[in-house]
Amino acid sequence: MGIKTGMKMYSSQLSPFASRCRMAVYAKDLEVEFLDMPDPDLEEEFSRLTPMHKVPLLVDGDVIVPESETICEYLEDKGLGISLRPTDAASIARMRVLCRIGDLYVMKPMGELFSQINPASRDAQLVAREMAELQKAMGWLEAYLTGDGHAVGNSLTLADCELVPVLFFFDQIGPMFGHVNPLSDYPKVEAYYKGITKEPAAAKVLAELDSALRRMMAG
Amino acid sequence: MGIKTGMKMYSSQLSPFASRCRMAVYAKDLEVEFLDMPDPDLEEEFSRLTPMHKVPLLVDGDVIVPESETICEYLEDKGLGISLRPTDAASIARMRVLCRIGDLYVMKPMGELFSQINPASRDAQLVAREMAELQKAMGWLEAYLTGDGHAVGNSLTLADCELVPVLFFFDQIGPMFGHVNPLSDYPKVEAYYKGITKEPAAAKVLAELDSALRRMMAG
Repeated sequence: MGIKTGMKMYSSQLSPFASRCRMAVYAKDLEVEFLDMPDPDLEEEFSRLTPMHKVPLLVDGDVIVPESETICEYLEDKGLGISLRPTDAASIARMRVLCRIGDLYVMKPMGELFSQINPASRDAQLVAREMAELQKAMGWLEAYLTGDGHAVGNSLTLADCELVPVLFFFDQIGPMFGHVNPLSDYPKVEAYYKGITKEPAAAKVLAELDSALRRMMAG
Repeated sequence: MGIKTGMKMYSSQLSPFASRCRMAVYAKDLEVEFLDMPDPDLEEEFSRLTPMHKVPLLVDGDVIVPESETICEYLEDKGLGISLRPTDAASIARMRVLCRIGDLYVMKPMGELFSQINPASRDAQLVAREMAELQKAMGWLEAYLTGDGHAVGNSLTLADCELVPVLFFFDQIGPMFGHVNPLSDYPKVEAYYKGITKEPAAAKVLAELDSALRRMMAG
C-alpha cells in the first residue's frame, strides 16, 4: 500500500548506487517500478534515455534523472512520502558530507579492490595503494559518525541510504583481503552499522544485497 | 558592500573546487574571508578543523563544512543572497547532474592528466586511458547542455559555478597534450562556455584562475 508515483527506476540488485535509491524508496514507502538491469529487452530504451548508461536511472514522466545522489535528492524535492532530509542547514550539510565520503572516497577505492578479489591475478601494488585510500576514507567516516544508530540526528536520512550499501560491501570485502572483521577497526562506524540495521528499509536492502552477492559468487 | 556573513573559507586560487565556491560567494555578493592555502601559519588550525584536510573548507561559527558541493548547497540552504538553486525539482535535478558530471567524471581524469603534463616523464598508457575517460565525460556534458549561456534555465545556478572552473582547466589542458582548441570538439559546451563568461562572477573567477595558473607555470 505504497504512495503511487508512476515512476520507474532502472536498477540492479547488486549495485550499491541503485541500492541507495531503493532504500530511500522503501523508507518513503513509494510505489516505484524497478527494472532490473542488465536486461537485453530493456537495453535499447535504456540507452535512449541516458547518455551515461548507468544504473540507477529514475524515470518520472518526461523527467529522466541519472545518478544515485541526484535521484535521492529529487525524491526529496518532489516532497513524496516522509522526508529523509533534515530541515536545518547544518544538519543537511552533515548529511551531504557523509553521503559524499561514502559515495566517492570509500566507493572509489573499494570498486578498484573488487576488481582484485582473485588472489591469483592480483596486482599487489594497486591493492596496497587502494587499500590505503580506503582506510583513509573510512577514517573520515569514523571522525564524522557518532556511533549512534543513525548518521544524522535520531531518524533516517539520505546519509543512511548512502552508507548502508557501502558498509555492506566494506564488511564483505575484508575477508577477501585477509581481514575477517574489517569494521572492528572503526568502532563508531561499526556501532552505527549495527544500529541502522534496525530500520526496516535498511534491513530490506541488506537482504537484497546479500542474496544478490551470493548469486554472483555462486556463479 | 557585500552581505555580512561572518564566515571564512580556506581556499586556494588554483583549486577548481575552491573556485567553484568562490564563484558562488561572488554571485551571491557575500562577505566571506578567504584564507589562501597552503599557509604554514594556518596549518595547525586547518588540521584541527578537518579530518579530510582539503580545501575548500567553510567555517560558519561552529558549523564546519568541507567539500565544494556541500559548501555550495549549504550557502543555498542558509538562504544568503540571491538563490543559485532553481525552485522546481526537475531543474534542480538537472543542475545536480551537471555538477556531478563536472565534479566527478570530468575532474577525475583531468586530475590524472595534470600529473602527466611533462612529456619527458609521461606514462603513455595512463594518458590514453584517462583521455578516453575525459572524452566520455565531456560527451555527457555535450548531451546535457543546450549551448545557451547558462547551464540550467536563463540565470546563474550552482551548475555554472561548478562548470566554469572545470572548463577553464579543460581548455588549458588540451594544448599540453597536442590539442590546441579542445572545446571545439564539443560545440554546445563551447557555446555555453563563451556565453557564461558574460556573468561577472564567472569572469572574476576565471581571471583569478588564469593568474594563479600563470604563477604556477612560471614558478
